[in-house]
Amino acid sequence: MKEKGILFILSGPSGVGKGTVRKRLFETSTNLQYSISVTTREKRPGEVDGVDYFYKTRNEFEELIRNGELLEYAEYVNNYYGTPRKYVEETLEKGLDVFLEIEVQGAMQVKENFPEGVFIFLFPPSLEELKNRIVNRGTESEELVINRLKEARKEIDMMDAYDYVVVNDSVDKAVEKIKAIIQAEHLKRERIAKQYKRILEDE
Amino acid sequence: MKEKGILFILSGPSGVGKGTVRKRLFETSTNLQYSISVTTREKRPGEVDGVDYFYKTRNEFEELIRNGELLEYAEYVNNYYGTPRKYVEETLEKGLDVFLEIEVQGAMQVKENFPEGVFIFLFPPSLEELKNRIVNRGTESEELVINRLKEARKEIDMMDAYDYVVVNDSVDKAVEKIKAIIQAEHLKRERIAKQYKRILEDE
Repeated sequence: MKEKGILFILSGPSGVGKGTVRKRLFETSTNLQYSISVTTREKRPGEVDGVDYFYKTRNEFEELIRNGELLEYAEYVNNYYGTPRKYVEETLEKGLDVFLEIEVQGAMQVKENFPEGVFIFLFPPSLEELKNRIVNRGTESEELVINRLKEARKEIDMMDAYDYVVVNDSVDKAVEKIKAIIQAEHLKRERIAKQYKRILEDE
Repeated sequence: MKEKGILFILSGPSGVGKGTVRKRLFETSTNLQYSISVTTREKRPGEVDGVDYFYKTRNEFEELIRNGELLEYAEYVNNYYGTPRKYVEETLEKGLDVFLEIEVQGAMQVKENFPEGVFIFLFPPSLEELKNRIVNRGTESEELVINRLKEARKEIDMMDAYDYVVVNDSVDKAVEKIKAIIQAEHLKRERIAKQYKRILEDE
């Protein structure tokens, strides 16, 4: 009577610190599985197919798109990147949770294709701090920063599509909150009622 | 911009250990408030009105019933006991969570009168263990035990009205799970979206 895993999607505005939170979370959680993406970019030295990415040709990738086999996909610098439904579903069947850290546009595609996922929005403590974080990266022009902020405001309006909102005022606190969400989701009645009713019938 | 508290209702079959779990939870949680009941039973020495109970006459209590001012009520040994809506709502407004441990019949009344509460069903590890627990109390006859078990099966069928199911295989684990539920509920998007949107507007 193994419990199925849950797909968790962590998203939020650019610069909010999704990657840092995801990394810290994986350091302290054992039942979480990365979602492995499929891509058309070339395999780099040391990368392993099925570990770092699933590597596909453009034709193969476009067939995945046509067949609805991707929970989301996007094109960057002439290469496709996407989340394969099959890998996610097989991992959930094994009883592992799958954790997907992704930009908001991608998260909205996942929401459409896999609404039973649990969507967590990572929120900046304030837009002012978001601006500082972007500026302190030191890698972008003033114009870029302003554009990112405009985008962030739009992205924050997208919060309504999410199940949870976690403010990233500290990485440790955000990770602790996400762990509480993961634990609570496994306790939801609709997920486990069937399991318990089977216990009752076995008596 | 204070966040409102949440009403949590812990319920479950007779003998499952609701009281023990509630007690341990209160030893380790700081933002939880007991729900103070209103009763028609006489005040005992040392008890304080508004601390142990709100003490009312039968007439006063029946007026509360008529005016819909009770989230639930029941009569035991010729005395009424109930949960006053006003006290709960005032405590929630202060930003405190209210925690109500109650039999399933009462929980279903609360569900009807306060559906925005979060309903947690405490589940026995198995009906067999439930039976042992009841027997080991040593205070009831065989017939009573059999009746309680029958009742428990009915109560377990009521699980569907709850938001979460927590198996009470160990008090510590059950308490940890309930704390995760409390934390996750405070992170739900529908509860805090308004709050965050206000942050955005303040920028």
